[in-house]
Amino acid sequence: MSELKIIAHIITDFDEKFGVPRQSGLCSAKGRIIFEPEYRSPDALKGIEEFDYLWIIWGFEGVESDTFKATVRPPRLGGNETRGVFATRSPFRPNPLGLSSVKYEGLEVTENGLTVLVSGVDMRNNTPIYDIKPYLPYVDSHPEASNGFAGEHRSENLKVEMSRELLKLIPNDKRDTLIEVLEQDPRPHYQDDPEREYGLSFAGLNIKFKVSESILKVTRVE
Amino acid sequence: MSELKIIAHIITDFDEKFGVPRQSGLCSAKGRIIFEPEYRSPDALKGIEEFDYLWIIWGFEGVESDTFKATVRPPRLGGNETRGVFATRSPFRPNPLGLSSVKYEGLEVTENGLTVLVSGVDMRNNTPIYDIKPYLPYVDSHPEASNGFAGEHRSENLKVEMSRELLKLIPNDKRDTLIEVLEQDPRPHYQDDPEREYGLSFAGLNIKFKVSESILKVTRVE
Repeated sequence: MSELKIIAHIITDFDEKFGVPRQSGLCSAKGRIIFEPEYRSPDALKGIEEFDYLWIIWGFEGVESDTFKATVRPPRLGGNETRGVFATRSPFRPNPLGLSSVKYEGLEVTENGLTVLVSGVDMRNNTPIYDIKPYLPYVDSHPEASNGFAGEHRSENLKVEMSRELLKLIPNDKRDTLIEVLEQDPRPHYQDDPEREYGLSFAGLNIKFKVSESILKVTRVE
Repeated sequence: MSELKIIAHIITDFDEKFGVPRQSGLCSAKGRIIFEPEYRSPDALKGIEEFDYLWIIWGFEGVESDTFKATVRPPRLGGNETRGVFATRSPFRPNPLGLSSVKYEGLEVTENGLTVLVSGVDMRNNTPIYDIKPYLPYVDSHPEASNGFAGEHRSENLKVEMSRELLKLIPNDKRDTLIEVLEQDPRPHYQDDPEREYGLSFAGLNIKFKVSESILKVTRVE
């Protein structure tokens, strides 16, 4: 095999790369998997409800390169240290495949056929999907394993401040996820300018905010 | 992206499909990852020793099909029941990508450059590899998740009988793994003929055996 087939796309609230959670499972963000017409068969999902989690193998977009770069600079290490690409989950890799374990939340019939609802997504809206597999804890779960540099450098959550007026502009069922996304500090790790206003595209809204010390203050919702 | 690049191949003791463990981590079988010349850079592995497990995304071979089959018959369910392909880890899927978490066992310089040693492999010898990522337990490990049908139908291990004379024909460092592979019953689940002699290709040897009740008896080593 060399030619990958797109079997589905996932609809999420992240229209831009900025703000997408760094890994799967870090917040409650929802996603809906819509199959391409030729893979749109309810039979293909028979028994999927037996599982709590699913693996999604998907494609990073906008990261393709003709040359192989052996090292990357993980944001978690401040952007200064290098690591081998195969020692990171960076999108800049020979085959830009993403791997996410998401929570299975059910099936729903839509005008696009039977769709799969999931949560804990770390994918941009409309990301192409190449495979879906059940998560099997008896072989996939290694809780005692080392997190490597990703463990040593986990960042503290920010405290999110948002006025009641601004919060009202966010749909009810999106509020918790938005707060979680902001708490996790979507800024590049090496940026720390309290005057800078950032813009996060989320659920069709533009959320403007500033960060000072460990407090993130939402300034506008557009 | 649609064209996958083979970045490496993995050398294992399983020359044929028969006998390959059903999933990763089920036995101590070793593997050596040899990179293709254009990805053969020690830099690409910098920091990989920080991790205990690695993900390998690899290619199932000999399973390609032009038509989409929505259901498969998992061996674990006896070969009679169907499940949707996305509710199984079957190789017969739109993109025949395998996903394995293997234990990182170190690096070794060879005439083929720097190679990665791993254990717990479930791949045939010379399987093409598309990606290697560090296993991150803080996002990848869900020990509480359901195993679905794979949990309800786990088979009991067989008791392996092998004479001292036959055992001597197996290289010392391969014996434990061979016993583990046999204990896990490599037969298709729906076969139960005590007279039938099976042949397992392992580490360049042909291991002949018969199974009666829960006892597997090695009959010849060639």
